[in-house]
Amino acid sequence: MERLERFRTLVKELKAYQYVMNVIGWDSETEAPRGAFGPRAEVMGIIGGEIFKRSTSQEYQDVVNGLYRDIASLDADTAKEIRRAKKALDKIVTIPEADFVGYQRLLTLAQPAWEDAKAKNDWAGFKPFLADIIEMNKKFVGYYGLPGEPYDILLDEFEEGMSMKAYDKFFNALKKDLVPFVKKILAVKNDRRDPFAEAKFPIDNQQIFSNYLLTVMKFDRSRGLLKKSVHPFTWNTSPADVRLTTRYSPDALFGSVFSTIHELGHATYEQQIDPIFDATLLSSGTTMGIHESQSRMYENMFGRSRPFWQKHLSELKRLFPTQLKGATVDDVVFAANKVEASYIRTEADELTYPLHIMLRYDIERMLFSGKLTVDELPAKWNELMKSYLGIVPPTDSEGVLQDVHWSSGLIGYFPTYALGTAYAAQIYHAMQKELDIDKLLRAGDMGPINAWLKDKIHRFGGSKSPEQIMLDVTGEPFDPHYYIDYLKKKYTALYLS
Amino acid sequence: MERLERFRTLVKELKAYQYVMNVIGWDSETEAPRGAFGPRAEVMGIIGGEIFKRSTSQEYQDVVNGLYRDIASLDADTAKEIRRAKKALDKIVTIPEADFVGYQRLLTLAQPAWEDAKAKNDWAGFKPFLADIIEMNKKFVGYYGLPGEPYDILLDEFEEGMSMKAYDKFFNALKKDLVPFVKKILAVKNDRRDPFAEAKFPIDNQQIFSNYLLTVMKFDRSRGLLKKSVHPFTWNTSPADVRLTTRYSPDALFGSVFSTIHELGHATYEQQIDPIFDATLLSSGTTMGIHESQSRMYENMFGRSRPFWQKHLSELKRLFPTQLKGATVDDVVFAANKVEASYIRTEADELTYPLHIMLRYDIERMLFSGKLTVDELPAKWNELMKSYLGIVPPTDSEGVLQDVHWSSGLIGYFPTYALGTAYAAQIYHAMQKELDIDKLLRAGDMGPINAWLKDKIHRFGGSKSPEQIMLDVTGEPFDPHYYIDYLKKKYTALYLS
Repeated sequence: MERLERFRTLVKELKAYQYVMNVIGWDSETEAPRGAFGPRAEVMGIIGGEIFKRSTSQEYQDVVNGLYRDIASLDADTAKEIRRAKKALDKIVTIPEADFVGYQRLLTLAQPAWEDAKAKNDWAGFKPFLADIIEMNKKFVGYYGLPGEPYDILLDEFEEGMSMKAYDKFFNALKKDLVPFVKKILAVKNDRRDPFAEAKFPIDNQQIFSNYLLTVMKFDRSRGLLKKSVHPFTWNTSPADVRLTTRYSPDALFGSVFSTIHELGHATYEQQIDPIFDATLLSSGTTMGIHESQSRMYENMFGRSRPFWQKHLSELKRLFPTQLKGATVDDVVFAANKVEASYIRTEADELTYPLHIMLRYDIERMLFSGKLTVDELPAKWNELMKSYLGIVPPTDSEGVLQDVHWSSGLIGYFPTYALGTAYAAQIYHAMQKELDIDKLLRAGDMGPINAWLKDKIHRFGGSKSPEQIMLDVTGEPFDPHYYIDYLKKKYTALYLS
Repeated sequence: MERLERFRTLVKELKAYQYVMNVIGWDSETEAPRGAFGPRAEVMGIIGGEIFKRSTSQEYQDVVNGLYRDIASLDADTAKEIRRAKKALDKIVTIPEADFVGYQRLLTLAQPAWEDAKAKNDWAGFKPFLADIIEMNKKFVGYYGLPGEPYDILLDEFEEGMSMKAYDKFFNALKKDLVPFVKKILAVKNDRRDPFAEAKFPIDNQQIFSNYLLTVMKFDRSRGLLKKSVHPFTWNTSPADVRLTTRYSPDALFGSVFSTIHELGHATYEQQIDPIFDATLLSSGTTMGIHESQSRMYENMFGRSRPFWQKHLSELKRLFPTQLKGATVDDVVFAANKVEASYIRTEADELTYPLHIMLRYDIERMLFSGKLTVDELPAKWNELMKSYLGIVPPTDSEGVLQDVHWSSGLIGYFPTYALGTAYAAQIYHAMQKELDIDKLLRAGDMGPINAWLKDKIHRFGGSKSPEQIMLDVTGEPFDPHYYIDYLKKKYTALYLS
């Protein structure tokens, strides 16, 4: 098929442009000096414009539409790819170039505006940008002309197939079971000593431990690396080049440890994708939710578990002998799973974390249905914090201004964090039937665990939907009760027995 | 002028593509994991192809040729820019796309082939690549159809206006005066203790000292950074983003110290260019030779001088108190200026360095005139080493295979290293008439020195020819006797008095 070959070439070129944007992004996030950003914005405008032009060119439209008409004749993976290309194409061609470019410029300005506002606790300084970003997103959804509610369209962009109806079902289950349980746990008096929060931990040795984690989790350094950045993230251009970052502070040993393990979950996923997808649009992980299931499984289910620390505490104590003198496995397990009502999502414990997400979901939902204005946002934020966690942030910086997402145009993204964790619980349950996970962690043997995840999830890249993955891996559709049961069992054992 | 505006837009776009190639190059040199290089080669092929297409497009040709016809109506800087654009255009349009792409591919393959050959002392493994690279360069020069000898065309590419005739005059002056002087110095018995070569110097503190050097040399960190790489280099995309690298080995303290100072010379040049040239083809330093004059002045004339160490030895001793116990300023000045007949150019002292360059110039000259074949190259290398330095490298890895340049297609580049150092001596001589350099160095006050260099050289970016710079700065044309006098005076004082 000549048309398919032409599609391959166009995709390869388009991906080359995205590749260079990714490399520039990596540089921006991890080391570029302040001065770089002015000239760089100009370059990104030019290359970004070229990407828009190529993504909407008549030839690309003809090729994708032509292949879509004959989709029945394609193999399953290619059909999935064409469906994905067609879905993206049908959206982007509805956007006038001026709006597309204007939105990119808005995001470029919104990012530093948010940083400033957060630093100065200046909600008013960020509000107009957020209002514009929400307006533009509504406008784009209007252009698409797709059936359904606007917020549903955004939810589907980050987690294919998800909608308010599906999320409501999920979050209502959490609300019913989890909110009272969290209150019960928060009421338990906890004055256990926490040696991991008290001392100062020199960054050099934290770096050594993070690198130790890469080794023991079997990260392939010939196809990736670890670096530091302000906000930890995973970056990839192919399974052959997968990079993760972590952050270091002398006051927060667990900050680097669990950021590194979390990102290792994402990074292992990307490294284990079958390279046959390299040149296709299916070359990365399926969805945000499935991706987060891997990072949260690594972080919470492996990294915060007793068997994990039975193996690895000795190395941590070797690096911090005075700070951790006398610390036991029990100490680390309790400290790593300490439950607290807190303001900041990224620092929240595993149990209160989904409540932070529910709050954001409620707010985005209301913003898009017209039930909440941007003006009313900070008050609503505080009201919901009070209702879910019983606390009110003293400043907007610790409240409505805390997250980077909205200033980057990521609306509809937050719910995937909670969903991913819930996926993780169900996948972990299935894995337990086939592997003695505790025993493997206690032995420091990640090989069989990574191999299982590769075989069941990772290798497929973006070729399966999340529904299909959950069904294939666990034998049943997604069911939030695995998540609720997991949390209740874990925290009952830690706090109520 | 509408045509000039169109030229500006085309140049801005072309520069955006070069910018992304530069960022990828920086990543490749400083951190990309091994796995990255496969996928990356494909991307660079696509973006490189786009650069070729845009550099040779009919529109670009029309615009440049149109402006060139009306060059008399342009201001001096724009005229210089158009002349430069026209010169490059007239060359590149003569190259068939297949040859251009084929040569890029050849270089991509030659690079790892050279690395392997050097590691394994396997001249035969690199020879066919070098033969092809030389053939392709001859072919390209043939396409250009310019008057003069092929090697002259290459020399001019790296140092505008230079030719074999001019270099012969320069090198013959060196041969006549310097070769016998070097023999005299090498005959002096030198058994002075060298504390800087004997001990082990932990890399962490070497990094601290290199960063200290950035601070005291007044490098602006908001517009640049220091990193490490296998081969030190300076990288820049604009005065707002100038980066340098150095290398660290526990056995070679001076390796990091003088690499850092050398690159600081290049980097300071780039940071001090007037931003009015940003969007033009005159946005970087004039030529390789003038650039090298700045790096070698920083390294040799400032960094290896007595006043410099009168100021900075205490900081070095603070970082390495046991290793440098009792070391004096005399010790560091002698150690930093120790003369030895050695095999490796990049590790050669200031006095024997130009002999390494003369050897390479002789060889390139003979290869292009047909007086030497690639087969005969290693024997000729060793013969010339014997003649200039009295030693013969025990392996090709320490001889003909040592440099990266030929495998990167850089032929005609080496002579600019010696020329730059000679420029430096003449510029330094002029600077001395206006500034008390020793006093400023002794006070650690680089401000007036950097300001002088900015005013006389740096700010002009690529808008002046090297001849013009030498004339404007020193009041006379380039004259190699300043260099010879400088070396004789310096080494007579150190070795013969």
